[in-house]
This record gives sequence, C-alpha cells and structure tokens, in this order.
Amino acid sequence: MTINVGIVGYGNLGRGVEAAISKAEDMTLAGIFTRRSSNDINPESGASVYHVSDAVSMKDEVDVMILCGGSATDLVEQTPFFAKHFNVVDSFDTHANIHLHHRSVGLSAREGTTLALISAGWDPGLFSINRLYNEAIDPEAVSYTFWGKGVSQGRSDAIRHIDGVLDAKQYTIPNEEALQTVRNGERPIFDTKDKHKRECFVVAEEGADLERITREIVTMKNYFDEYETIVNFITKEELERDHSQMAHGGVVLTSGEMGVIEYSLTLPSNPKFTASVLVAYARAVHRMREEGIVGCITPLEVAPAYLSPKSSVQLWKELL
Amino acid sequence: MTINVGIVGYGNLGRGVEAAISKAEDMTLAGIFTRRSSNDINPESGASVYHVSDAVSMKDEVDVMILCGGSATDLVEQTPFFAKHFNVVDSFDTHANIHLHHRSVGLSAREGTTLALISAGWDPGLFSINRLYNEAIDPEAVSYTFWGKGVSQGRSDAIRHIDGVLDAKQYTIPNEEALQTVRNGERPIFDTKDKHKRECFVVAEEGADLERITREIVTMKNYFDEYETIVNFITKEELERDHSQMAHGGVVLTSGEMGVIEYSLTLPSNPKFTASVLVAYARAVHRMREEGIVGCITPLEVAPAYLSPKSSVQLWKELL
Repeated sequence: MTINVGIVGYGNLGRGVEAAISKAEDMTLAGIFTRRSSNDINPESGASVYHVSDAVSMKDEVDVMILCGGSATDLVEQTPFFAKHFNVVDSFDTHANIHLHHRSVGLSAREGTTLALISAGWDPGLFSINRLYNEAIDPEAVSYTFWGKGVSQGRSDAIRHIDGVLDAKQYTIPNEEALQTVRNGERPIFDTKDKHKRECFVVAEEGADLERITREIVTMKNYFDEYETIVNFITKEELERDHSQMAHGGVVLTSGEMGVIEYSLTLPSNPKFTASVLVAYARAVHRMREEGIVGCITPLEVAPAYLSPKSSVQLWKELL
Repeated sequence: MTINVGIVGYGNLGRGVEAAISKAEDMTLAGIFTRRSSNDINPESGASVYHVSDAVSMKDEVDVMILCGGSATDLVEQTPFFAKHFNVVDSFDTHANIHLHHRSVGLSAREGTTLALISAGWDPGLFSINRLYNEAIDPEAVSYTFWGKGVSQGRSDAIRHIDGVLDAKQYTIPNEEALQTVRNGERPIFDTKDKHKRECFVVAEEGADLERITREIVTMKNYFDEYETIVNFITKEELERDHSQMAHGGVVLTSGEMGVIEYSLTLPSNPKFTASVLVAYARAVHRMREEGIVGCITPLEVAPAYLSPKSSVQLWKELL
C-alpha cells in the first residue's frame, strides 16, 4: 500500500516534487495537474498529466495533493480550493500573511474533512522549527536568520525594470563579520542591512548609461539603498553561463547563555530541496489524517517521526 | 495555572533543571527529591527538598517529574518506577539499550496511565531529530555525527585507573579535516578513529614513570589504541584551574545531492544545556498528557510546538 501523491503545477518546484516522489519507496505519483495543455508537458517520470480542472473528479485516486504554485497569486486561491477535496501540502511563504492563509485553508479543510499542511520548505519550515526549538530551550537566547548566498527573485525583477537593463540577477550574501560576531557568543542588535550584502549582475542595452543604471540600483528605496551593494555589468552569455543556477541556503544562528546553536543549509538547488521537504510532509499529512486529524497545520505541529517511512522501533534503534 | 515540576536527583543535571525551571514563567518547582539527607542540600531556588521515598505520597502535587540520575544505574530503575505514578522525563543515553528502556518504561506508563518521555537531551535528542529530518528529506544523503570538543567521562576514568595516575581529563576533539571533507559535499566512509582525536591531561604521582603511563594510555584497547592520542602531564592545580569546565558540543553534518546540512552545538556547560532541553520536554509531556496521550515516547514523537509556552497563533506570527 503506497501513498498516492498528486502534483498541482509543473514548474521547477513541481519537477522537484516529481523527482523526490520517484525516490520514495512508499509513494506513487498519481498524476500531474496543470493549467497548461497536457500535451505541452512530458514528465521525466512518465507520469500521467491531467488538466487541473479534472482534479476533483479524481479525488479517490489521490491521498495527498502537493501544491507547487507561487505564494503571491497561486496558493492564496489554490490551497483553500484543493483543501475542500484533498489532503494538501503547500509551501506558502509570504511570512506576514501565513496566519491569514492558515485561517482560510483551515475553514476549507474542516468543511472537506481533510488535513492541510501549509508553509513547508526551509524558510518558513525547517528554519522556523529550529527557531522554535532554540527559543523553547533557551528563552533568553537571541536567534538570527541569515539568507544566502542565493538569488533574490524580487530584487532581480526590480533591477530588470530599470531603463536600459536587459536582464539581471541579484544575490543576497550574508555578512561574514556579522555571522562571526554571533558565533563568538555575542548578542548584537543588527539592522537588516548589517546582516547582508547585495551583489548584482546586470546585462545592459548597448550604449546604455552604466553610471546612471548603477546609481538607480544602489539608491533604490528599501530594495538597495540601505545595503552595501555591488553592481557588475556582464554580457548576456556570461549571465546565462554563470548565473542560471538556483543555489541558495542560509543559517539560523542562536546565541545565549546556554551556548551557540547553528543550523545551516547549503543548497545547490533551492526548488529541488524545497520539493524534497514537501514530499516528506506529504507522508506526514497522510499518516496524521489516517489517525483522524483534520484541519490546517504547519511544520511546527508535526512530530518528526511522521516524516520518515521507517517504523518507530527502527527510528529508536538507528537515530536516537 | 502553572505546570508543577519535580526533580529527582540533585547533581549537576538536577541543579541545571532547577535553574531552567526558574526561567520558565509557566512552571513552578514543586520540590527536589533526593536519596541524600535533605539537610545536606540547600537549593539555590529555595525549593523544598524531600527524601525520594516520600515522592509517591506527593503525586497529586507534581504534574511532571524530571529524572536527573545517570543512565547506567539510576534511570534503568528509576524511570520505570516513577512512570507508574508520575508523568516523567529522562535523559537515558545508553544508545544501544534505548529500545529496551522504552519497553520497560512503556509498561509502567500504561499501568499508571501516565506519559513518559525518555532520551531527551542533545544526543540522543536534538541530534537524533536532526538526523531524522535530514534522512526523511534526502534519503540518499549520509549523516555524520562529530562530538566535542568536550570531556569524555568514561575515558577520563579509564586513565585514572592507570598505576601512578592521580587524576585525568580526556577531551574528544573532532577532526577538522574530516569535518571539512563532508562540508565540501563529499560522502566519505570514515572509521570512528578518522572522525576524532583524543587529548589527555594527566596528573601523575611524584616520581612516576611518565613514559610508561603514556604508553599505557595510547595503547589502551578500544579506548585509545586506534586514535591519534595526545598526552599532556600537568599539575593538580593546572587541572583544577584549566579543566574543570563542563563544556561540550558537536555537529550533525549531512551531505547529499540536495546539499549540505549542518547542525552544531557549542555548549559552555553540557549539564546546563541538557537540563534546559529536559525542562522544555516536561512542558510537552504535560500538554500531551492533558490531551489524553499515555505511554512511552521519545523526542522523535513530539511536535515542536509542544515545547513552547507560546500560543499557536503567536508561533505562526513570530517563527514561521
């Protein structure tokens, strides 16, 4: 008896989920659901592709649906919709709106008697869990989150909107000095700008005024003006060759009287890793629903053991 | 309504638990239970001290009992005994016997309709949780655990038994080169000896044959013969001045296709940190028992949110 998992949305994240399911011996990929024409998609796993509007008619064939859209426009609609019919997992990551998303998804899940898990991934997700453990163990400690080195999609887009810019990538880079201060057991008060630097790789139109573009970037309100920002102009070919990876990572660093706790991720592919986290939580959701749990939860409410396909005895013997 | 917590055993760990409870706003220290004469103990918190034989008569005044004895002789007896009467938390850390301890504690807990949590701390405990998350997310990854720098009690004792040795401390030190290999994303196969070095600080009797003592240490079967071992002879005063700290720590380092995950602890006081973990799990045990859960569990079966005194909404807003 394997867990039948469906995928909604087939971008980078959806393809990562497909790959992670193929490695999970206790799971079967029930189908990929897309808004595109199913003929446009040839999944590497050979899985069946359906139009997203056919999903509800297949509800008996899917134990858990993993929603692989973006937070801004897709998940706010999709997760409440699918939670009425399926157990679901999403990676909703608009931090400020998580409690609102929780409320709307929870209403749907209770209406559909399903279990929905939101905000899986690494931040929110694994980083949140670490912040929680550390705070519960050492209430007087201070936790710092550093992101990078990795591309920020929002800031890259902002640069692309500048006149004379053809393409751009912006890397968020943690400030090594700030990291080292916390590692040494200090508990400084940082502004956001003290924790990160920003490095931009920009492809400009031929003959564009590079000084003006640089000035427009480094003075851009909220996005760059407060940060140490480095601007590099490169060719389209260089951008494609050197900056098309989706590497990312970060550190949760906690410093208190009890000591220093460091949790760090170095990820060659942000979407592949996030996808693997979603798949592990799909396993948890299936099991918890089998135990009768209904409603909306987050990774904070999931016991670690639910994520593993191993039996309890195996876990105690191998991991404790 | 605070959680009434009792402490059984008043060594370094018990004193650490006392300190951690005094920082927890949702907890009250109900009493310290000891095998010693209660007159010999003056707790810093001013808590009441009782003989351990009086504990059962006070079962209505204690919500959770934290057992602070050693694994080898105390907990194998104490945890099954106390679990018949109290919700309990222990730090049982004899890895090979955890599943046996689980069985005997589970029988008692079901008999007493209590909830018992065993093997809290950092290894087993937080390190186990990290190994589990990482394995569930990236089943093909390899996890390595490194311990130290910190004193190994067992190996220090072994040195003290050598003829001509008055006192000794042995530090387990992770091998930086081995750590770096894994950080670089490789997945080497290590012997235990490749991962750690051993450094010994020895106080010898006046006129003792230091060469013989050194030889007896570095050739000691299982304990030292396979490791790179450094032996330093120092005075009694130097040992007391420089080597009476209880610092410890370690790293769980996971390397796989999905990336490198590193979880590290640098702890000025091993017993104080372990005590803080036990207190957070006492909160979890109290809440889970209130929800009707009975039997024996480990940190692997506890959802992170149970460890925090904060409400769910607060956790979603502050930590996700």
